[in-house]
Amino acid sequence: MTMLIAHLGPPGTYTEQAALAFVSWVHQQTRQEAILCPLPSIAQTLRAVAQGKADLAVVPVENSIEGSVSITLDMLWQQDKLQIQQALVIPITHALLSRAPTKERIQTVYSHPQALAQCQGWLEQFLPDVQLISTNSTTEALGQLEHDWSVGAISSLRASQLYNLPILASPINDHLNNSTRFWVLGQGVSTRCSDTSSLSRSHTTLAFSVPANVPGALVKPLEVFAQRGINLSRIESRPSKRSLGEYIFFIDLEGDTNSSLVQSALAELTAYTQIIKIFGSHKVLPFISQNIHHSTGSMIARTGT
Amino acid sequence: MTMLIAHLGPPGTYTEQAALAFVSWVHQQTRQEAILCPLPSIAQTLRAVAQGKADLAVVPVENSIEGSVSITLDMLWQQDKLQIQQALVIPITHALLSRAPTKERIQTVYSHPQALAQCQGWLEQFLPDVQLISTNSTTEALGQLEHDWSVGAISSLRASQLYNLPILASPINDHLNNSTRFWVLGQGVSTRCSDTSSLSRSHTTLAFSVPANVPGALVKPLEVFAQRGINLSRIESRPSKRSLGEYIFFIDLEGDTNSSLVQSALAELTAYTQIIKIFGSHKVLPFISQNIHHSTGSMIARTGT
Repeated sequence: MTMLIAHLGPPGTYTEQAALAFVSWVHQQTRQEAILCPLPSIAQTLRAVAQGKADLAVVPVENSIEGSVSITLDMLWQQDKLQIQQALVIPITHALLSRAPTKERIQTVYSHPQALAQCQGWLEQFLPDVQLISTNSTTEALGQLEHDWSVGAISSLRASQLYNLPILASPINDHLNNSTRFWVLGQGVSTRCSDTSSLSRSHTTLAFSVPANVPGALVKPLEVFAQRGINLSRIESRPSKRSLGEYIFFIDLEGDTNSSLVQSALAELTAYTQIIKIFGSHKVLPFISQNIHHSTGSMIARTGT
Repeated sequence: MTMLIAHLGPPGTYTEQAALAFVSWVHQQTRQEAILCPLPSIAQTLRAVAQGKADLAVVPVENSIEGSVSITLDMLWQQDKLQIQQALVIPITHALLSRAPTKERIQTVYSHPQALAQCQGWLEQFLPDVQLISTNSTTEALGQLEHDWSVGAISSLRASQLYNLPILASPINDHLNNSTRFWVLGQGVSTRCSDTSSLSRSHTTLAFSVPANVPGALVKPLEVFAQRGINLSRIESRPSKRSLGEYIFFIDLEGDTNSSLVQSALAELTAYTQIIKIFGSHKVLPFISQNIHHSTGSMIARTGT
């Protein structure tokens, strides 16, 4: 059966690159085919899967420079049905695309807020007087270039090829070691691939709230893992949106929900948390950059953008 | 001696409200006078204090809906000289300001990205087709209203009064219980006010990095506090900006660096961390909204904006 995979579009976004890499890997393993479905926002991408309109969603989780993608964590907490099937990491190279003859002619730069933030040093140095305008995705920014040559957009090299747009400068990200972690989410637990020998160790992602204004409320849940020697590779707090100082904690731990050690920790955790949500165990797909160019072949179809 | 206090400007920002509330409180306690110095960015505000050009900086740290202000945490980590003198919490009420006769005539809305995010539900419901444009501050957005009546800006009620701009809708924040925590930062430890009976218990803020790729690297530092029964009221991770999965952890703990319990924890913590930075102990100033209106009186001067 062909998979329908929702992602932040239009085509050319870094999320589409992640979706293509995932589809290519699945195709190698199982010959399964996929249709990519670009949507205008991360929220709509996740809703499409929660409502059963798409099989999977590919969404950015965190960038090595700018940190967490808040909307992904907030939506995951709100939606009760989504499980992480897979993680993958994509290197990020931002380019300045424009029809201007030189970058000095640019007066306005459009891009996604994360891309603008990741290039803020370069922009301050080379284009200190331009107006910066946020768009819903890096690709959406490209729509501004067609009719106005004083406009630039920060987007991917792939988008430059896809839409035949000149590159005025690349890379323009302030840190060359820039990468973004993506999650592939679906309803229920993944059973797609049995050959996972090339993948990393399992990580399990969960989130919980703790009772408000109780001393030690956060210490107890963390001790549950510490006492068992379970390493936490990430702790991220998000506001509960009810009151300042009330948080939801997102945790990535090293281990699988299949293991009895993790199971016993999760069982004990319920005693110290108010709401707890387990988003599943997953492994990290190794990124092979050639995947992207080969993967636009026969196993990919694409819905209207 | 008159204090010079840097904050994100121009006048009318929520950060200016926080600065005014702080100045009013200090004036009540010590009769000390202050000059407010509005600057165009949070980064410049903190640099002004680190370079000795201002005595104190008032900066936003976290909002109850959108979470941490990344640039504040990242700058605090980079600057070695800054200590937190005081915390204060300001309730946030966003208004839509415009010279348009009705909100339906608005085609573009300008504001700071945090304000746009805190009103995203309202904007989707009432102005689904407008273009959203980011500005450096909520007050900076108001500059767009003068000549173009199809433009709106999300800003504070105080800004509406200050610049005599019509309010088309208020409150427009998606969560009415919206507040922002600010820090007052300076070089060295605060000795300004001895009467702190009206203030909360002390909190201490610190940040540390842990060795990369070492299992248990994060568990150990947290156990240092758990074993002593020191409650952590906040854990926030920020990317190290070196490699994905390497973090700097910001922690707020309940306790004062004057206490021997906290001192012993901090001493032991050095064994499990790579770099550790202590940003000082501070208390939360209670917010009295009337302060804002009274505080624009004689003890405040203001530098050019």
